[in-house]
Amino acid sequence: MGVVVAFEDKDTSQGGIEPLVGLTRADMERVNAMILSRTGSEVTMIPEVANHLISSGGKRLRPMLTLATAALCGYRGEGHVKLAASVEFMHTATLLHDDVVDESDMRRGKAAARMLWGNEASVLVGDFLLGQAFKMMVEVGSLRALDILSTAAAVIAEGEVMQLAAAKNTETTEDEYLAVIRGKTAELFAAACEVGPVIAGSSKGEAAACRSYGLNLGIAFQLVDDALDYGGSAGQLGKNVGDDFREGKITLPVVLSFRRGNAEERAFWRRTLQEGEVRDGDLAEAQALMRKHGALADTIERARHYAKMAKDALGLYPSSPMKQALNDAVDFCVARAH
Amino acid sequence: MGVVVAFEDKDTSQGGIEPLVGLTRADMERVNAMILSRTGSEVTMIPEVANHLISSGGKRLRPMLTLATAALCGYRGEGHVKLAASVEFMHTATLLHDDVVDESDMRRGKAAARMLWGNEASVLVGDFLLGQAFKMMVEVGSLRALDILSTAAAVIAEGEVMQLAAAKNTETTEDEYLAVIRGKTAELFAAACEVGPVIAGSSKGEAAACRSYGLNLGIAFQLVDDALDYGGSAGQLGKNVGDDFREGKITLPVVLSFRRGNAEERAFWRRTLQEGEVRDGDLAEAQALMRKHGALADTIERARHYAKMAKDALGLYPSSPMKQALNDAVDFCVARAH
Repeated sequence: MGVVVAFEDKDTSQGGIEPLVGLTRADMERVNAMILSRTGSEVTMIPEVANHLISSGGKRLRPMLTLATAALCGYRGEGHVKLAASVEFMHTATLLHDDVVDESDMRRGKAAARMLWGNEASVLVGDFLLGQAFKMMVEVGSLRALDILSTAAAVIAEGEVMQLAAAKNTETTEDEYLAVIRGKTAELFAAACEVGPVIAGSSKGEAAACRSYGLNLGIAFQLVDDALDYGGSAGQLGKNVGDDFREGKITLPVVLSFRRGNAEERAFWRRTLQEGEVRDGDLAEAQALMRKHGALADTIERARHYAKMAKDALGLYPSSPMKQALNDAVDFCVARAH
Repeated sequence: MGVVVAFEDKDTSQGGIEPLVGLTRADMERVNAMILSRTGSEVTMIPEVANHLISSGGKRLRPMLTLATAALCGYRGEGHVKLAASVEFMHTATLLHDDVVDESDMRRGKAAARMLWGNEASVLVGDFLLGQAFKMMVEVGSLRALDILSTAAAVIAEGEVMQLAAAKNTETTEDEYLAVIRGKTAELFAAACEVGPVIAGSSKGEAAACRSYGLNLGIAFQLVDDALDYGGSAGQLGKNVGDDFREGKITLPVVLSFRRGNAEERAFWRRTLQEGEVRDGDLAEAQALMRKHGALADTIERARHYAKMAKDALGLYPSSPMKQALNDAVDFCVARAH
């Protein structure tokens, strides 16, 4: 399946994610070591399950953002490493739990942990990682950072429950969908970026700027992910094209196609997503309807709006290689669909 | 002062606001009669103050939206007239209170009520109108509509307080600004549009669609207003160009200009908006900085994003003159800047 989403602003994304990876490399090695050491337990199933997912090659964008925003704000201490590891643990915990909720078979191109160790182990090891995340945060000793990340943990769970409640409802509005992805995805990006300036002792304005950067980057990131699920390739996704479709997930490409469609098309979406009655050729039909209504291209256009907000948020900071790398990361997230 | 904002999509706004005005005309006459009858009081100052503002020729877009969404959903009863009048009373009450908070001299091209009758009378007549609004809602007898509109009243007040807290802070993020205008402007648009399907007994999906239409229309409307305040003409505004600037209001054109500006420019914004030290020629300088950074054009571009969301929200409804009129109204709101 080829890429069906066209892009205009190729030129702005020349930097890609590489500058951010490069500038955070030394600290990320320490974060990775911290992650490995903190998954250790005498209960051998815990490191097995945790490392199955952790070692499966995610981009670790979220902890990278904590390191990057701390550096952007001139942080000189040691706390950013533990906070970054906490952020990755929170992310890993939600992935383990998501796979159980969504009954997913694959994650990052490998069998999902629940397929190898079962649902119970996935849920409990997720809980263990959340606990370890809080332990590390407490060790850093910033009450404000603890407040931000624990609030995020609650908001993420709330977003997942919202998604559950909205699941399979083809009449979901774009606003309702946005509320879900703000919770389940953007909030952790926002918190990851906000704790950087917070431990650096930056002003409220800077903390709000970094938070706004992360929040809008997270929204753009999820929108592009949702478009890729219908228009990308398995290689780009680390999972199969059409997973959202098979799971009956209502994402923006569906919201737009449903609203722009005629009665017959809406019946198709209701049958496949609401009633879960998926036949051979339905995914291709879904993709054709999305093309017909420009739903993937417009999902990416909506993502661009949030990408612009993310970049304007960082405008407060003077030019620096780190600021440039963070702006490049925004373009990278939107341009992934290439 | 000429118009400095350029538009691309002139063609889509051919219908303008006229179709909506035409289709709601008969009901709007009943709403206007209701409004006049409900401002009556033996305390003669009340109708004087209320009618000074009410008869000053606002567009009455909000009650029109209640009538339009009720009609769109096939409503056949009488309750829409009182709900529409309630919505206009809520709006009038907030205008009376806003002028006191902002110490405004003018409103809709006339002296503000507080300049003629004083702050106390403006506050209290606003409270009277809010009370009358709730009385009319209760008479309609829809608990769900009451819930929506009373929640809106609380959210609007919250938005105004948020604006007070954010006032003069040039480091306000775009997200924080959006939270303010969601509260102070978009929430009433959303509620005005949601009560239509609610009294029509429509499905949850339709109520959510109309709410989403109103919410995003309201955001787009306010964004364009904020751009016009720097780039429009007094005739378009019914108030003076630059009022927001003189009042130290932080709107999106300022947020973007501040973030995109250099140290010297930021000092200008801090001096004029944060410290309130405005000199001759400062408004022209503010406008020049906005042009330099494309802040007005980008504010309108951001508005277009919400305009698109509003139109997609209504996609659920079959084609009809009323649906077309509501879509035209969105284009009209964005194209006002011409």
